Amino acid sequence: MNDQLIIFDTTLRDGEQSPGASMTRDEKLRIARQLERMRVDVIEAGFAAASNGDFDAVKAIAETIKESTVCSLARANENDIRRAGEAITPAASGRIHTFIATSPIHMEKKLRMSPDQVVAQAVKAIGWAREYTDDIEFSAEDAGRSELDFLCRIFEAVIKAGAKTINVPDTVGYNVPGQFADTIGKLIARVPGADKVVWSVHCHNDLGLAVANSLAAVQAGARQIECTVNGLGERAGNASLEEVVMAVRTRRDIFPCDTRIDTTQIVPASKLVSGITGFPVQPNKAIVGANAFAHESGIHQDGVLKHRETYEIMRAEDVGWGANKLVMGKHSGRNAFRSRLLELGVVIESEAHLNQAFARFKELADKKHEVFDEDLQALISDEAVTPELEHYRLISSSFRSETGETPSAALTLSMGDQETRAEATGSGPVDAAFKAIETVAKSGTQLLLYSVNAITTGTDAQGEVTVRLARDGKIVNGQGADTDIIVASAKAYLNALNKLHGKFEKLNPQV
Amino acid sequence: MNDQLIIFDTTLRDGEQSPGASMTRDEKLRIARQLERMRVDVIEAGFAAASNGDFDAVKAIAETIKESTVCSLARANENDIRRAGEAITPAASGRIHTFIATSPIHMEKKLRMSPDQVVAQAVKAIGWAREYTDDIEFSAEDAGRSELDFLCRIFEAVIKAGAKTINVPDTVGYNVPGQFADTIGKLIARVPGADKVVWSVHCHNDLGLAVANSLAAVQAGARQIECTVNGLGERAGNASLEEVVMAVRTRRDIFPCDTRIDTTQIVPASKLVSGITGFPVQPNKAIVGANAFAHESGIHQDGVLKHRETYEIMRAEDVGWGANKLVMGKHSGRNAFRSRLLELGVVIESEAHLNQAFARFKELADKKHEVFDEDLQALISDEAVTPELEHYRLISSSFRSETGETPSAALTLSMGDQETRAEATGSGPVDAAFKAIETVAKSGTQLLLYSVNAITTGTDAQGEVTVRLARDGKIVNGQGADTDIIVASAKAYLNALNKLHGKFEKLNPQV
Repeated sequence: MNDQLIIFDTTLRDGEQSPGASMTRDEKLRIARQLERMRVDVIEAGFAAASNGDFDAVKAIAETIKESTVCSLARANENDIRRAGEAITPAASGRIHTFIATSPIHMEKKLRMSPDQVVAQAVKAIGWAREYTDDIEFSAEDAGRSELDFLCRIFEAVIKAGAKTINVPDTVGYNVPGQFADTIGKLIARVPGADKVVWSVHCHNDLGLAVANSLAAVQAGARQIECTVNGLGERAGNASLEEVVMAVRTRRDIFPCDTRIDTTQIVPASKLVSGITGFPVQPNKAIVGANAFAHESGIHQDGVLKHRETYEIMRAEDVGWGANKLVMGKHSGRNAFRSRLLELGVVIESEAHLNQAFARFKELADKKHEVFDEDLQALISDEAVTPELEHYRLISSSFRSETGETPSAALTLSMGDQETRAEATGSGPVDAAFKAIETVAKSGTQLLLYSVNAITTGTDAQGEVTVRLARDGKIVNGQGADTDIIVASAKAYLNALNKLHGKFEKLNPQV
Repeated sequence: MNDQLIIFDTTLRDGEQSPGASMTRDEKLRIARQLERMRVDVIEAGFAAASNGDFDAVKAIAETIKESTVCSLARANENDIRRAGEAITPAASGRIHTFIATSPIHMEKKLRMSPDQVVAQAVKAIGWAREYTDDIEFSAEDAGRSELDFLCRIFEAVIKAGAKTINVPDTVGYNVPGQFADTIGKLIARVPGADKVVWSVHCHNDLGLAVANSLAAVQAGARQIECTVNGLGERAGNASLEEVVMAVRTRRDIFPCDTRIDTTQIVPASKLVSGITGFPVQPNKAIVGANAFAHESGIHQDGVLKHRETYEIMRAEDVGWGANKLVMGKHSGRNAFRSRLLELGVVIESEAHLNQAFARFKELADKKHEVFDEDLQALISDEAVTPELEHYRLISSSFRSETGETPSAALTLSMGDQETRAEATGSGPVDAAFKAIETVAKSGTQLLLYSVNAITTGTDAQGEVTVRLARDGKIVNGQGADTDIIVASAKAYLNALNKLHGKFEKLNPQV
């Protein structure tokens, strides 16, 4: 067992807690399928007790995923654990991950419990969880600022009670590698029963050290790393899956273990998560940034081309760059379309849905000669809004902008069953479009972010627009794709309004 | 001396080598002024021998900056070093940074020199450099894959010859912290004269470990870190300045040193570099990402607000978040405008230039009620194209897009002295605008990247568009800002063409 490093992906739970990264059930399913394809060992699918939406998403993932363990987070109370247990029941392999805070500041200020009460509660939690599964993980929240003696005491207790994985999170990203490794090493040495469990770490990136801390812990004996695709997560995020996996793979001489990950699925996973959440990946991001492999950026650099090994420690193709180039066009048929979608992890549920998506593909192929995988992903994202969420929809639009005149937009929208016309002027056509929508929707939201990325290269590329809206402390991302950027913007705005119109209140635990 | 950690910023040299991050002389000057304001110890301003443009930029920075040391990179040959020496002559404090490869693979395949020849060349290089300054830094390129004995030998030789700083780069980003610290510790222990010099590290981020490796080296005795704002740099970039500085500052209990950095200038520096290079900062980037401090993202999160110290290890205001909120409007006067620009590090060279910028500010203030610092930065970037570069200019434009019709653009452009009209249709109005420009410019370029970010929040925000074009292996970024996204796109495209029209060939050393 010691030579396998378990990859526990929490993109769908901790990653989703990033302000603005909320995902729908279908979006989560698409990511879960990609994680399974990448051979992630454990998928933390959500926090089932947070809301009915979260419960449904965890359950749907548990029903769908066969090759990875599906896990739900749960606070150490009976209700949370029962909800988690019910959600993972359909899983081929299911795990409950329960946690409680162990640092003096958290026990006193947040839990208002004594250390004895905290230990007793943790042990009770393991008992409830065992009614559903033997695969139980326990986390000591804010372990990085907890007292070592207390950690040893609570870990010993939960191991006796039946926990199989012990997770040590650095909740606030305060640790540095040498010292964190030291903590992990001491825990493994001192906790009775340490050799019967898998030791895990969950690091946050506030000081830019999440990956380094995770790897240092592995050198000290940890055999599970909790991480996310693109390092998504609260604040500065979690340890990034791709960096952890490639560091261990590239430096096999140093790390006494390896992962099961199919690394060629890393870049597709990165693009999928970035597309769905609207969180861009900066070009200088390790492994998955557009510039991470210099020779991939289209430049002829003599030194690099002559002797690749002079500057390369990894090959771009090993992490999935360039694998995704299959091009479709207006002559591609319905079967080719369907099988390409399957390869992209998109399962079309009904023939009607497939026909609808194929019609949109043909429409796009008419405007654009070459349709890339990224275009298909965008088309599907655009399509994937579940009907009950689609309160607002764009029917047609007209925009004008001319030097010396005020830009204007005229839209026809459907709103529930009604069809409405909306017109406005603005400081630009996008502003005019948003103002036109607001004359009808009167949402009272605040626009927090507007960004556009071309999905593929070429001037006829589709633009994918992300709009982030806030109202009453609730934040949603809307996405829209179109070869016309103003149309894409209007769609994105409507998509965000549709998400606000739906309900997804939730609790956000901080692990 | 041992308790100061020297921050050596190479945003303008290694950072600029990122494909697409090339900067004009004026852009470099604006960044250099911000680095000085942030109290960076050493600014690596460029590689003077790379091109006449690079020489001029290093010289201009040497003439301008008073509080930081200004450094030029130079290969270990006489021409490079004399060019570097001449460029830094005007500096209040100038440094020459010379390097030669020391790994077997580089010596054999790239230099085609024997180890003895390499040592002799390095010593000669220090001799040439001493004709210009005593402040000489020596780097062993690809030290991470060099033999320790050979490194000791060459370092001993250059220290005897007069090098004052010895830099150990991890050129290909292959090292991991424990092992890298070990190498640095051994070098300091073994090299005769090690106590007379400052030990420096320069780490690349290919495995996501640049910051961790740099910090591990500090624990082993290094007292200079080479880094860049936002971790900009070739491939996955360099160690990020903000992470290094805040890790050392936040964990004073672990690091036996501190930097001189004014951390409140970190976020303004990050925004400036991102704006000029067009490289976005991902929201989950540590310290400078939009989500790095949860409570800054506009959400009311109960847990965080109640007990900030529960989840916070740094304060957002300490790194400059929220400091930049001064708002100007249509009633702001010329003096307020000028003094705000000065505070932003923008020095307007002539009254005529100031009048021009002020007129544009008034125009913007008419369209948008509130003008933020970011708007001013964009306005100045837009304005800062030096006249000789401005071959193409947008005079007026008209765009239409309507459901069921092909989007169209009609532009009036000036091209040198000529005024031309250009029209085209496209798959969207941006595509139509680019195609219209190409009917006139016939540039034969390839569009590599198109992205838009709203500069401030609100639907009337200006959009800042980045367009990356490539031709014959040359890559340029164009930027344009306007409240009308299509106008901003056309401006960005023309700006990129203007940069291609100018000449800035250069060599790219890999350190």
